[in-house]
Amino acid sequence: MSELVLKPGERLDHLLAEDLRIIQSREVFSFSFDAVLLANFARVPTHKAKIVDLCSGNGVIPLLLSSRTKVPITGVEIQERLYDMATRSIEFNNLSNQIEMCHLDLKQAPALLGVEKTDIVTCNPPYFNTYSQDIINKNEHYAIARHEILCTLEDVVQATSRLLKQGGKAYFVHRPNRLMDLITYMKKYRIEPKRIQFIYPREGKDANTLLIEGIKDGQPDVKILPPITVYEKNGEYSAFMRRLLYGEES
Amino acid sequence: MSELVLKPGERLDHLLAEDLRIIQSREVFSFSFDAVLLANFARVPTHKAKIVDLCSGNGVIPLLLSSRTKVPITGVEIQERLYDMATRSIEFNNLSNQIEMCHLDLKQAPALLGVEKTDIVTCNPPYFNTYSQDIINKNEHYAIARHEILCTLEDVVQATSRLLKQGGKAYFVHRPNRLMDLITYMKKYRIEPKRIQFIYPREGKDANTLLIEGIKDGQPDVKILPPITVYEKNGEYSAFMRRLLYGEES
Repeated sequence: MSELVLKPGERLDHLLAEDLRIIQSREVFSFSFDAVLLANFARVPTHKAKIVDLCSGNGVIPLLLSSRTKVPITGVEIQERLYDMATRSIEFNNLSNQIEMCHLDLKQAPALLGVEKTDIVTCNPPYFNTYSQDIINKNEHYAIARHEILCTLEDVVQATSRLLKQGGKAYFVHRPNRLMDLITYMKKYRIEPKRIQFIYPREGKDANTLLIEGIKDGQPDVKILPPITVYEKNGEYSAFMRRLLYGEES
Repeated sequence: MSELVLKPGERLDHLLAEDLRIIQSREVFSFSFDAVLLANFARVPTHKAKIVDLCSGNGVIPLLLSSRTKVPITGVEIQERLYDMATRSIEFNNLSNQIEMCHLDLKQAPALLGVEKTDIVTCNPPYFNTYSQDIINKNEHYAIARHEILCTLEDVVQATSRLLKQGGKAYFVHRPNRLMDLITYMKKYRIEPKRIQFIYPREGKDANTLLIEGIKDGQPDVKILPPITVYEKNGEYSAFMRRLLYGEES
């Protein structure tokens, strides 16, 4: 492994199931379960393909995907501080040959990375479409990662569509209350929803997360995959989550 | 109870959980679980309201709803044979004061029942948008109930919207592969999706049924309710289904 330089406030966490390491920082950015769920949900080709991850943050999705495919992965992140964390994590895991980070506004990504040249686009976008200057003042890094400050959901879907080849696949994770917006934009930008999976925090609760796969110019025919429940009744992770997070066999 | 006249091929079934009886006929029409799921899903006011059930078939949804509310319910059914079965079931259950069946094309329903006069519309529409003359020849009654022969999904949503007051609620049951169409038409006709629930035949399987509630001119904000699983691993009905079908306490 390469030499590691951690900056103030940073720590080196494990991605246990993949036996990788990732730089995090409570003050700046920590990846969420949602990124882990999305990386697991994405169906990635093992060769002859190109993957782009938008809103890449500290590079968690490219790192997770690298354990399942050897195709080149490009991470796009607008915040220099996060881009820098991601780049160091990739170097530390000796994955610089496979993963490249781009410090870039995703709206510029198609022009710079190529229009209709990508097979798979993943994105864990900012979830909240309302924000105040107050939120931004409190912690700019988190505010940008979580709120639609520098890009809207429509920007995300539009950039995804421009990146994708015909037949290419888009993968998004989002909150169920934005399902209608997400589907509306996907349809608008020719990404046909094909598989949707809902995540429920525990039995009897409404879903709090959704995963969606769309195919550019795909035929309309959506499937609703089996529900994922995060916690068992006893408060422990479900078998699915243990496998996802720790690589445990059920 | 009133005197019952059963016609050839008909039988008198129980709606166990509601202690009601319903005329069915294997040759003509039998209600499905989907109707039971939809009636259970619908939130019905207990007074000062008007309910319309479109594609009412043998009247199963009005009958089921009558056990939970005393407000007037109108069932609309285009097939005279089914309309007749529904009418006799209603009479037999002494519910003619509450439930009225109309032998009517649903496209005519708003003009005849009143535009924007209804608080709740329920509909278990034909599911299949493809059909052949062959299917119709085999059994016209089933073909019309199951295939979009006499009305399309768009007709159903449009008629529902015209019937509904502002703020009125629509309830549909359908197959998940038509989710995109259903949502598209609901948005087109100003019925905002608010609650969606998916039904899974058993653990690990994709959903095969969806329930959706929309509010006319409602604010966008959809919730995904907890999943319903029909069968346990041992092949028996889940507690939810037993309660629904037999009224058993869990």
